[in-house]
Amino acid sequence: MRRTSGDEGSSGSRSETAKQQEDKTQTLNVPSKLSASSVGPGWTKASCPCCTSKKVEPLVLVKLGENVRPETKRWLIRLIGAPQKDGGAALLAHPGEDASGDIIMVSAPCCTLLKATEELGLCRIYQDDNMEAFSYKNRHNFKNSDDMEIFLTLAERQYIVKYELDGLWAQRDLRIPGLPDSYTLQHRDNIWRKLGSAGVIEDMFPLHNQDKLRDLSEAWYSGNQLSQPLDSINEYFGSSVALYFSFLDCYTWSLLPPAMLGLLITYFSGRCSISSSGVKLRGDYLGPAGYSHVIQAVFSMLWSTVVMELWKRRSSSSSYRWGTSQLAEHFAEPRPGYHGVLGVNPVTSRVEPLFPEWRRDLRIALVSIPVVGLFLVLVVLGMLCFYWGEAKMQKLHKDWDSLLSQTFLYMPSVVHIVFTNVLATIYKKVALSLTEYENHREESAFENHLTAKVLVFTFFNYFAVLFHIAFFKQDIPMLCKRLGSLLIVSQLVNQVTEVVIPLLVDKFISVTHRTDSEDEPQEDKFRKQGTMPGLFAEYIELLVQFGYLSFFSCVYPLTAVLLLINNLTEIRADAYKICKLFRKPFSQPVTNLGVWQTAFEVLSFVSVMSNCWLLLLSPQLQKLFLEGGISSTKTILLAVLVEHVLILVKLVLAVLIPDEPDWIKKKREHTEYTSMQALRQQTSTRRDGLCFKVPLTQFML
Amino acid sequence: MRRTSGDEGSSGSRSETAKQQEDKTQTLNVPSKLSASSVGPGWTKASCPCCTSKKVEPLVLVKLGENVRPETKRWLIRLIGAPQKDGGAALLAHPGEDASGDIIMVSAPCCTLLKATEELGLCRIYQDDNMEAFSYKNRHNFKNSDDMEIFLTLAERQYIVKYELDGLWAQRDLRIPGLPDSYTLQHRDNIWRKLGSAGVIEDMFPLHNQDKLRDLSEAWYSGNQLSQPLDSINEYFGSSVALYFSFLDCYTWSLLPPAMLGLLITYFSGRCSISSSGVKLRGDYLGPAGYSHVIQAVFSMLWSTVVMELWKRRSSSSSYRWGTSQLAEHFAEPRPGYHGVLGVNPVTSRVEPLFPEWRRDLRIALVSIPVVGLFLVLVVLGMLCFYWGEAKMQKLHKDWDSLLSQTFLYMPSVVHIVFTNVLATIYKKVALSLTEYENHREESAFENHLTAKVLVFTFFNYFAVLFHIAFFKQDIPMLCKRLGSLLIVSQLVNQVTEVVIPLLVDKFISVTHRTDSEDEPQEDKFRKQGTMPGLFAEYIELLVQFGYLSFFSCVYPLTAVLLLINNLTEIRADAYKICKLFRKPFSQPVTNLGVWQTAFEVLSFVSVMSNCWLLLLSPQLQKLFLEGGISSTKTILLAVLVEHVLILVKLVLAVLIPDEPDWIKKKREHTEYTSMQALRQQTSTRRDGLCFKVPLTQFML
Repeated sequence: MRRTSGDEGSSGSRSETAKQQEDKTQTLNVPSKLSASSVGPGWTKASCPCCTSKKVEPLVLVKLGENVRPETKRWLIRLIGAPQKDGGAALLAHPGEDASGDIIMVSAPCCTLLKATEELGLCRIYQDDNMEAFSYKNRHNFKNSDDMEIFLTLAERQYIVKYELDGLWAQRDLRIPGLPDSYTLQHRDNIWRKLGSAGVIEDMFPLHNQDKLRDLSEAWYSGNQLSQPLDSINEYFGSSVALYFSFLDCYTWSLLPPAMLGLLITYFSGRCSISSSGVKLRGDYLGPAGYSHVIQAVFSMLWSTVVMELWKRRSSSSSYRWGTSQLAEHFAEPRPGYHGVLGVNPVTSRVEPLFPEWRRDLRIALVSIPVVGLFLVLVVLGMLCFYWGEAKMQKLHKDWDSLLSQTFLYMPSVVHIVFTNVLATIYKKVALSLTEYENHREESAFENHLTAKVLVFTFFNYFAVLFHIAFFKQDIPMLCKRLGSLLIVSQLVNQVTEVVIPLLVDKFISVTHRTDSEDEPQEDKFRKQGTMPGLFAEYIELLVQFGYLSFFSCVYPLTAVLLLINNLTEIRADAYKICKLFRKPFSQPVTNLGVWQTAFEVLSFVSVMSNCWLLLLSPQLQKLFLEGGISSTKTILLAVLVEHVLILVKLVLAVLIPDEPDWIKKKREHTEYTSMQALRQQTSTRRDGLCFKVPLTQFML
Repeated sequence: MRRTSGDEGSSGSRSETAKQQEDKTQTLNVPSKLSASSVGPGWTKASCPCCTSKKVEPLVLVKLGENVRPETKRWLIRLIGAPQKDGGAALLAHPGEDASGDIIMVSAPCCTLLKATEELGLCRIYQDDNMEAFSYKNRHNFKNSDDMEIFLTLAERQYIVKYELDGLWAQRDLRIPGLPDSYTLQHRDNIWRKLGSAGVIEDMFPLHNQDKLRDLSEAWYSGNQLSQPLDSINEYFGSSVALYFSFLDCYTWSLLPPAMLGLLITYFSGRCSISSSGVKLRGDYLGPAGYSHVIQAVFSMLWSTVVMELWKRRSSSSSYRWGTSQLAEHFAEPRPGYHGVLGVNPVTSRVEPLFPEWRRDLRIALVSIPVVGLFLVLVVLGMLCFYWGEAKMQKLHKDWDSLLSQTFLYMPSVVHIVFTNVLATIYKKVALSLTEYENHREESAFENHLTAKVLVFTFFNYFAVLFHIAFFKQDIPMLCKRLGSLLIVSQLVNQVTEVVIPLLVDKFISVTHRTDSEDEPQEDKFRKQGTMPGLFAEYIELLVQFGYLSFFSCVYPLTAVLLLINNLTEIRADAYKICKLFRKPFSQPVTNLGVWQTAFEVLSFVSVMSNCWLLLLSPQLQKLFLEGGISSTKTILLAVLVEHVLILVKLVLAVLIPDEPDWIKKKREHTEYTSMQALRQQTSTRRDGLCFKVPLTQFML
């Protein structure tokens, strides 16, 4: 049986069998093998004549539920192929190996792709070699607009298919053939969501292109390259993935200066401690070499702002190059989950569900924030209970001193870990429902709010203990120990789970299937792969790292060195993972890192406070001040002054370093200027004649 | 002699005599009286037929130098009247009472006004009742575009005349008739600046319209109105003046809550001090009533952020209503003083002088900031010398104790005041040259940078002593005394100089001329009035007030009450001043307060630090902590914590309160959407055919 594999879920293999049973009853003339270069027959016809081409590239695989009836599938294929004015998606569909199988392959004709490009607000190369927001009406003036494989990246074409399918709305009340009446579509229902909840559609994912993937992985991680092929990553995986790797790259190289400084400090303080071993202080874990940790702290505080500003510049040139700098999500149709009272959008004059912003703000303020706060309190409570339990157990152990009491010593840790994990699992669900409840109009706003919620919690979870040690226990040696072990242990765990296990799995499990892998149909290979959990885990890993580095760098100068080593392997591991181990993800075009960028910036400012506090606590500095006859009050005031000055310097740096390179700024202003000119050139007839006015009046009548 | 008056400068009256001498030699048929309703004859013809109207409204008076020859004046009138394609200003000119007199009256024909409206980016009411950026091509769809007196405000029409005159460039090398060869215009020279430096043009100012002014002043300050007629102020004086009065209004009314709180606290603490007179503390100037000054401080800190956010909302609706929300200064011609290498502007593709931004930044960083810093150091040095001198003199007085030594006691103050004034005078000139040297492209950027420089210095000058007392001497009673006297003295001085003296001058000096005032020509009345020193002085007064209130409110709870009383009279005084006592100023359309808004916001954040520090110093709180057994270290840490939390709350408040009302946001987004649509609708032919492409190639050849 070629279709069973370790990665395959049970429902998948069950539907396989269901399909095979149907194979026997029905036999149709469809190609038995679908590859990236599959050709014409079997595909639905494109609705406009200009899009009929012999070669159709399958882009997305829609996986149907196991009990979907053939008439439902036929209806679905018709729907996918129908023109948009008839409520269809204007895409191309293929029933897979046979008409009653549980998959539908979807592709997109030229015109649908071009129209969606305009809707999404993607920029393309104009005839004068500038990037301009694509306009369908004006398509002949954009370079390569006749060849979709050059004009749009593979990731964009696949995302557009998903975008069109997700955006299918019922134009009127509609019964779906082969489904019970309870699933009848109402006017303005989102068809794709309804089909999902009815179990008709089980999954949908973009198809890999093995040739391109091979080329990409060779250029990416097979050799000893120092730089990543970011443009190819964008071409194959889309801008969100490419931006992640670009950020990882930027961040890793920017670790070089603090790593070198850390090495220098460790080296010199090591030499010092040998030569002056007689005068070892209690605070020598900070390195007795003069003010080295002050230098380290101040450097790392200013460094983090500079890095973030440089990243913003890099990010803006990337998004310009990749054509995602002027995304028009705000003016597009709302995301499928968005609901509200039907009305006329005051911005676009289209009829769509409306939900007033103040109600969203109210929901955020009165529901989301208190709930998130409650969970954070639970984290703190958990931590306090842990400390309380640990103290109790230690007392118990002292009193009893038996083997049983020794095992009890581990009890609080175990309970705490279980509690934390359960809490995190619950929280993730709660965060999702809260964000759904907030009812965001745009997909990116939804993502950002969800990410922000999970992010705050995860971050709190990671750092609560460290902050407790630093601010309440004020126990710097313990902080240092804890930080060192966290850095080393978490990196080891990371490397093992991210690199070693997947490698082993791939080596050993794949080998058994290697023989028939050349032979099996494409879609079966994809079925084996699990869905990638998204970039959240990757980003949070970087953020926590960044937190260790910027919050506590002055107590552990080697942090940057360890992180640099970790990141250099991380790049390869992540690249390998996304290419080989997981299903290809859909990638929405994005302009920047969104909420992650904010999180890194906030961290970089909070780190000033934490560092100043740690310096204040450092016994060495305290001794220095004591020797200089400076009172502890004055020391604190000095620390506060230093903190304020540093924050001011960081603010000034952030303002002074422009967020976008000069040439991007000029291009942006040029676009603003031309669109202002265009608006003025428009005479009234054209302005009134814009298409959206018609549905509006239709609806009002 | 009707033309002599107290306000008239000597050069003015000399030119009068010169004119009268010429009167005798030449007599021409020009109307002897020019009023706002003056009609046709004498005016140059409009270059386009659609603009010929019988009634011409004189807008701006150009005052020529005393020795200007008639041929120069004739050339100038021709230049003003010539169409723009011939290098003229396309305005209407009138030679005044006689052809060789020293004035030219300028008006503007309809088409010039409309074209300038588009260039400036002013918004007007479209046929669908929305405000839209005006487009000349599309003018018939804007309401009232055929009646300039309704379509544009008087202030806008007058500003446009100035804008056109200021923007006159020599299209080729040109000899000015009647001037020596050294004043020959070179290609791309700014004609108006050259004429100014050659002494041909002495002054230029907008004309008052007595009827409108009377109506305005009746509605504004004659009665007991509580609200100001802001729309009429905008109509008559322009948006910059109207925004100032709108801000003054908003700020004054927002003083009510802190004033009431201050009164309450004073009342209750007064009662307390009577009932508990036995337990009077050393710190009873703070009011012995519990934590009243803490409440006052926290309230005023949060209050200032809320006020600024509310102001931003009000400001954005005002600028929407007044059509200045989408000013296109950035895309217009550079300001007259701008210089650089001729090149093609990458944004607008026009040929104009270019000056790279990095060079400007470099000049700011390497020249302006150090020089400004030097002056600030001089202020501090002056202050330190003053303290040193005072101490010396007091010692001297103690040793000698004579009448001579007693007069010596005043020496340091006198020297310090003289030093400060001389420094301020020098600084103003230096700031102007520095800003000229920075070579800003836009008038508003120039203004903002100049204002910022003077502002920082003035502010430092005002507050250096108070900060010295608060932070170095840490002498709260002295601070309290000083603040009280400053508030009362400065307000008294203000009221006297701003209200009483002008009133007296107006009453007594005007009375002598009242008899013939109805009879004398309009332009002679204007000659009497001095130029208004700009709104800088008014704004800095508000800012310093705001500084007193927010920095030190916790030591002197009645600050808000005093300021409220002051501002209520200030509104009337300022209104009277601008209407009656000064020449009407030109008013560039502005969107918001610019750098002043930033200054108020920065102040409101800095005030948190100052308040927390003052609370820390307050003997009463120190005693409370002492009684509670809390160490001074812990107290400081608590203060720091409170400060950080307050800053965080202020930041959150600033982010949470949207900067513009919801309806404005929607309108703005709608405009963005339509201009995006317009850009897309544009086909290639139209895009290539934009007018600016032609001069570009002409120039390149």
